[in-house]
Amino acid sequence: MLLKFTKMHGLGNDFMVIDGVTQNVRLTPEKVQQLGDRHFGVGFDQLLLVEPPDDPDMDFRYRIFNADGSEVEQCGNGARCFAAFVLERKLTGSKRIKVQTKGGPIELRVNRDDEITVDMGLPKLEPWEIPFKADRQSITYKLEVEGRDEEIAVVSMGNPHAVLLVDDCKSTPVERLGSKIQRHNRFPENCNVGFMEVVNPGEVNLRVFERGVGETLACGTGACAAVVAGRLQGLLEPTVKVNLPGGTLTITWKEQDLPVLMTGPTTRVYEGHIRI
Amino acid sequence: MLLKFTKMHGLGNDFMVIDGVTQNVRLTPEKVQQLGDRHFGVGFDQLLLVEPPDDPDMDFRYRIFNADGSEVEQCGNGARCFAAFVLERKLTGSKRIKVQTKGGPIELRVNRDDEITVDMGLPKLEPWEIPFKADRQSITYKLEVEGRDEEIAVVSMGNPHAVLLVDDCKSTPVERLGSKIQRHNRFPENCNVGFMEVVNPGEVNLRVFERGVGETLACGTGACAAVVAGRLQGLLEPTVKVNLPGGTLTITWKEQDLPVLMTGPTTRVYEGHIRI
Repeated sequence: MLLKFTKMHGLGNDFMVIDGVTQNVRLTPEKVQQLGDRHFGVGFDQLLLVEPPDDPDMDFRYRIFNADGSEVEQCGNGARCFAAFVLERKLTGSKRIKVQTKGGPIELRVNRDDEITVDMGLPKLEPWEIPFKADRQSITYKLEVEGRDEEIAVVSMGNPHAVLLVDDCKSTPVERLGSKIQRHNRFPENCNVGFMEVVNPGEVNLRVFERGVGETLACGTGACAAVVAGRLQGLLEPTVKVNLPGGTLTITWKEQDLPVLMTGPTTRVYEGHIRI
Repeated sequence: MLLKFTKMHGLGNDFMVIDGVTQNVRLTPEKVQQLGDRHFGVGFDQLLLVEPPDDPDMDFRYRIFNADGSEVEQCGNGARCFAAFVLERKLTGSKRIKVQTKGGPIELRVNRDDEITVDMGLPKLEPWEIPFKADRQSITYKLEVEGRDEEIAVVSMGNPHAVLLVDDCKSTPVERLGSKIQRHNRFPENCNVGFMEVVNPGEVNLRVFERGVGETLACGTGACAAVVAGRLQGLLEPTVKVNLPGGTLTITWKEQDLPVLMTGPTTRVYEGHIRI
């Protein structure tokens, strides 16, 4: 079949976005891998598939696949691109879009055309929810890495995150530490690892090592997790500019029982069609 | 303007191919760089631009740009994709296509739909033609690298190549040696560096470090240069299977005054359109 798709990115985190509402799409993990290859296929960090919802209270089902073919729970930059895509395609006219994801329901709010605010839901902090092995919930935990204790916060934004404070993002050995922490045995489903440098209470620099991917240009859920971790440690204001290698996101988290809001740009790069 | 393009690859060497015959295309180096970015743009090893020829004896002008925006002389895998593209687009009906390139005129012969034979022209062997600094022409030369003499052959296939014989391609430090040889001061315009392991007189394994790019999945002109170098050293038959990391090419070079013929597959991946 001839499959139409749109290539998009949010801060350089790039996506092949497929309308599975008006197209009948069947993707195997092998097919996702083929499409994801940057030399032999289309190439992307994640493939975003928009489908009709199972749950009648939801507007869409939104599925996310990594380039290795695995399905993941959540992707913040992807959620913004997803919202821009369904609006532009006129798959919905609503400014509040309720979406069913593998990581649970999320709501997307469209403010303006060029910047979209995504309601990323409530952060989950209890160890079993991350999942993270610990006796009881705490603001930070000691984690043994390379024979020494690192202090980490753990947050789930639908996917598991460890967040470390660092003095200087640039000089942090993100690949080395990130690859060890991501598969630490206290994270039964592995985790994403964020390294956050607090510039001031309203601004941080952040580098994220993504589970199964390595360091990326911009991790949206990582930015949310970092701000939650920083707020809980009393270091940050409710709204924080998060500078990532690919660009800047604005994250708002007012208080414990409110959802995390993420605002940032989306870019449509090109339209394509491919025979699969 | 809305620009139509086709994404193709030859052995994983991937191309954004643009019809500049029926579309009015103006590309700056900056625009090529933007398009070439795999996260923010389309992403490719090279951009191939098909234009009307300046020379009325030629069928097309064929221009090749690296992802860094620089224009290069020649690309063997690109030439096959170029031929498949102009045939499929019915820009020509000829089975012998005369093409003006920055590296000089080449002729493309179409044998079958799935495999195309490209006449890559005569290899150039005189040092000043490569260009390579040497007192006189020789089959091989000693080149000082990391304090020791490496034995290299030098061949121009429209672009400069150094070819080294190795016992085992897999264990060769291609990045380290390649990056040093490519910018060696005896190559005033730098060079591509091939590491060839002779399996038998009809088959070689080859890894190529491409000038300004690094190691690639498959370098078409590198395969031609390697077979020319091996033939001149009496190691190879006229037709040789060249196994590259991305797949296999068949190279034929019968004798000194005949052109090198390269046969291999081309794949169209998808059609796209982008606003530039």
